Amino acid sequence: MPIGEIAGVAPGSMFASRRELYDAGVHRALQAGIVGAASTGAESVVLSGGYVDDQDLGNEIVYTGRGGRDPASGRQIADQVFDGQNQALVTSCLQGLPIRLVRGAESDPRYSPGQGYRYDGLYRVESYWHERGLNGFLVCRYRLVADQPATPSQTIPAGPAARIQSTVLRIVRDTGVSREVKALHNFHCQICGVRLDCEGGPYAEAAHIRPLGAPHHGPDVIGNILCLCPNDHVLFDNGAISIADDYQLIGRSGRLRVSHRHEIDPAQLKYHRKMWGR
Amino acid sequence: MPIGEIAGVAPGSMFASRRELYDAGVHRALQAGIVGAASTGAESVVLSGGYVDDQDLGNEIVYTGRGGRDPASGRQIADQVFDGQNQALVTSCLQGLPIRLVRGAESDPRYSPGQGYRYDGLYRVESYWHERGLNGFLVCRYRLVADQPATPSQTIPAGPAARIQSTVLRIVRDTGVSREVKALHNFHCQICGVRLDCEGGPYAEAAHIRPLGAPHHGPDVIGNILCLCPNDHVLFDNGAISIADDYQLIGRSGRLRVSHRHEIDPAQLKYHRKMWGR
Repeated sequence: MPIGEIAGVAPGSMFASRRELYDAGVHRALQAGIVGAASTGAESVVLSGGYVDDQDLGNEIVYTGRGGRDPASGRQIADQVFDGQNQALVTSCLQGLPIRLVRGAESDPRYSPGQGYRYDGLYRVESYWHERGLNGFLVCRYRLVADQPATPSQTIPAGPAARIQSTVLRIVRDTGVSREVKALHNFHCQICGVRLDCEGGPYAEAAHIRPLGAPHHGPDVIGNILCLCPNDHVLFDNGAISIADDYQLIGRSGRLRVSHRHEIDPAQLKYHRKMWGR
Repeated sequence: MPIGEIAGVAPGSMFASRRELYDAGVHRALQAGIVGAASTGAESVVLSGGYVDDQDLGNEIVYTGRGGRDPASGRQIADQVFDGQNQALVTSCLQGLPIRLVRGAESDPRYSPGQGYRYDGLYRVESYWHERGLNGFLVCRYRLVADQPATPSQTIPAGPAARIQSTVLRIVRDTGVSREVKALHNFHCQICGVRLDCEGGPYAEAAHIRPLGAPHHGPDVIGNILCLCPNDHVLFDNGAISIADDYQLIGRSGRLRVSHRHEIDPAQLKYHRKMWGR
């Protein structure tokens, strides 16, 4: 399933019809607003102004899930649940996958094309929640954010009580390889065994043993990745835990949980120990 | 201590001397390469090409700590430790604080000004480590990254085995208020009590109860923030845990750990429960 950009389709590209969007591979459904699967995440979303609760703020979008509405009146008559395409957006959130965003002429006039459909680039599902609406039924909601720079940090300067405003980005790289490692361990942490079961599914992080980037230049391969809970990811990346060649933990009692389908490169474990003077 | 941008000093600003840098408040020391304190983090760093192990790649810098060198020969003759200004950079990393970066004419010629000093904007201490060098002594090292957009996600297109490359940014907002909450709880998680003691110090996250941003527009005030470990932050943000007005946990046994100096706004707890249909 193509997740991410489509080669040759730049943000701002226009399409006359849903058929053209479909043929270009941008949104591979002729009617549904969400394309995707619960297991692999959402590919794309078309905003077409169908739901009054949706809010389009340009770089931020508040989006409502599908289902539970009376087709005739459009009124909510049952709970929405996180399944099918609603769950696909949750999977995109938990795995940090981008979605393609398309705006149709019927969506919010401030950001819509005058006619047809416009591909507006990649967005992230920053969060999802499950809200009880005024009518008493649960609805699935999402916050989509343009896949762009976060607001740069800024200081409100001077004065003895000056407040520092900053935005911290914890960068968790999620590649095809790292999703494979998480699946092999079924989202259980290889250090402590915990699995974080969220309302929308399990969550784990892929930790590179030898870090990516200068000066380490660790490879993005399965043998250099561990499946960890966020807590042990922080401790591993910050030198509180290392791992011996026999998988005995250093800095914590116990052994690394391993799988015969996930071969860990001892050279990377050694590199990590050396990083922390061990 | 002014952390972050200095009003009126744009990236690219030139200074003829360390004295001018000092007077402008950009780097408040006349000789030291790092300005900052262990408890509050680093303010600024001047690159002046003194250390052969440093690498300047423009938006990424590999930087070496101070100390343990023979003043005459410049050779490493003792271990470097994470204290003083070396620890200040670690604190900046663990708290996600920006540092001002200045390049002098003596630093890497590819990125240096021809003469004097240039303020090059804000960088983050993305990681730190404690490496045993070839000479057998431990050195403190850091990876500094320009405070700019991460590489946009990209798909290596087509082919049945196409790999998705993407970068996930877990956005952990760290404001003056959130640091206050972490300090009040001494970095212990208010849900599980754990404290992550890293090689460089304790780590915790500030979790907004009612989220920031549309459509929630939660306030960035102490009454809307919890001090949580990353695991419970993920579970709280993703609906696995809520909190009753009497601080009983919902979705987990036990009670929230509270402090009389940290008054939590019950309206925000109610908002969070409503987000998850409770």
